Amino acid sequence: MGDKMACKPTAERLLNQARQDTEALKAKGIHPHLAVVLVGENPASQVYVSNKVKTCGELGIASTFEKLPADTTTEALLALIQKLNGDDGVHGILVQLPLPEQIDESAIISAIDPDKDVDGFHPVNVGRLSLGEPGLFPCTPMGVIELLKDSIDVLKGKHAVVVGRSNIVGKPMAQLLLKEHCTVTIMHSRTQNPADVCGQADIIIAAVGVPGLVSGDWVKEGAVVVDVGINELTKEADVTRFCKEGSRKMKAFRKKGRILYGDVFYDEALEKAALVTPVPGGVGKLTIAHLMVNCVTAAKRKADV
Amino acid sequence: MGDKMACKPTAERLLNQARQDTEALKAKGIHPHLAVVLVGENPASQVYVSNKVKTCGELGIASTFEKLPADTTTEALLALIQKLNGDDGVHGILVQLPLPEQIDESAIISAIDPDKDVDGFHPVNVGRLSLGEPGLFPCTPMGVIELLKDSIDVLKGKHAVVVGRSNIVGKPMAQLLLKEHCTVTIMHSRTQNPADVCGQADIIIAAVGVPGLVSGDWVKEGAVVVDVGINELTKEADVTRFCKEGSRKMKAFRKKGRILYGDVFYDEALEKAALVTPVPGGVGKLTIAHLMVNCVTAAKRKADV
Repeated sequence: MGDKMACKPTAERLLNQARQDTEALKAKGIHPHLAVVLVGENPASQVYVSNKVKTCGELGIASTFEKLPADTTTEALLALIQKLNGDDGVHGILVQLPLPEQIDESAIISAIDPDKDVDGFHPVNVGRLSLGEPGLFPCTPMGVIELLKDSIDVLKGKHAVVVGRSNIVGKPMAQLLLKEHCTVTIMHSRTQNPADVCGQADIIIAAVGVPGLVSGDWVKEGAVVVDVGINELTKEADVTRFCKEGSRKMKAFRKKGRILYGDVFYDEALEKAALVTPVPGGVGKLTIAHLMVNCVTAAKRKADV
Repeated sequence: MGDKMACKPTAERLLNQARQDTEALKAKGIHPHLAVVLVGENPASQVYVSNKVKTCGELGIASTFEKLPADTTTEALLALIQKLNGDDGVHGILVQLPLPEQIDESAIISAIDPDKDVDGFHPVNVGRLSLGEPGLFPCTPMGVIELLKDSIDVLKGKHAVVVGRSNIVGKPMAQLLLKEHCTVTIMHSRTQNPADVCGQADIIIAAVGVPGLVSGDWVKEGAVVVDVGINELTKEADVTRFCKEGSRKMKAFRKKGRILYGDVFYDEALEKAALVTPVPGGVGKLTIAHLMVNCVTAAKRKADV
């Protein structure tokens, strides 16, 4: 029987580092500044964006919030990006995804100055990550690597299995684990015998968007399991499959008619793993903390300090 | 007991494709043109470069060969790259690696127009490969994928193990296998229990630069083994370890005092695998054939045909 893996200490370490770096930069006359761009009224995006702006404020990082109407064109958004690219006072640019469907998302991401691309989604940064060159890299995988460094004595030589191959989590996660000298396996929906493949992992990173996919038989005794999935469950049959009657999650479901649940079958995984991150209250904290680190990193590099 | 895996038919298919595409482009008034740049007198590089130029000639692709002295500066090479970038008649630029040590290799690679980067080493192309966007991708892994498509009915769902994590072969190979929906494991010098990890592979790609590393106990019955390694053996003890007395390789060694040997212990691997590529006479042909394909692809994209 394993333990819940706390992400908060790592998130706080990252936030403290960002806060101290911000103070040091300010003492040199440089004020780190994040520009956050939101297009449209997506409720989840509004929450994410306001959390990011709020965290900037708590750390002393300046922020601007640019809100554009839902019918914004690619050209109009490109013009804003160009303005922010050219603004020497702006160190980080974050365009909240997803964008409305009339906008060419890939053109927008490619238009951001790679050295201001705090999400790490620009092709140049994706390339730099693979090549082992300095750059800005995606916040969730970067945060997860910090969590693993804080939790596992030696990463080198461990077998890490990444479940999912998204551009935002799975693929950059694999690159970062490789950089830490892990043996890395990437599995996905087409993988045959998934329990056997995943069952070899010393470290499992689940980032696939399928609630409870990583069941107990996928988990080796003593493994460390990081759950990056956030899925909304609204059907009783789904919730009763994963949560015991009388549990806190089940009570929450009875009250609200919905709960958030990760990609890991938490109760089963906990029986075998050494550590499992919870959902919610898990890696989400790491993502926003590493966004702050990326923002300060961009400001430091620009000032060459 | 498996078979020697012939690379020549795939290489010829790629060369024919490049030849036909070149003819079609010429009929439209576009003459695909590769500029090859060699700095210094490295004998191996001279052989590689002259093979590339020769193959261009055989296919009707125009080529220019720019030879610079060994003491060329980064600035001088950058100036040449800029000239070639700006030359609308040049579709592909290949700077033969390795460069003399006074030259900043990464600055040179990053200076090449990504749309003329027929080696696929520019960070933007590395990023595009990972993101699944169109680009120019490294020739050896691209050639190997074509070989696998020609040799294996269904790649989807197969477990591929890539031995080695270089920027030129291992990492792009893993991305390409993932794109074909393989489960992909990347292992390397820090991997624990390498025989167990590699022993699960339906497909093994060896690209690590250690002669005969992939021994029989690393190979699952019926696996397909692609050997990308080319190592020179000059010591009798090394040769007698891998080659039987009286074999063709041993005779060659007795005569010349050296042989080329791959990363796969060929005789042992052949006992268990279904197919093993030989060294030499293996994937090398695929690399140069795919360089021609990349060159024609660059010309086609520029002409938007």
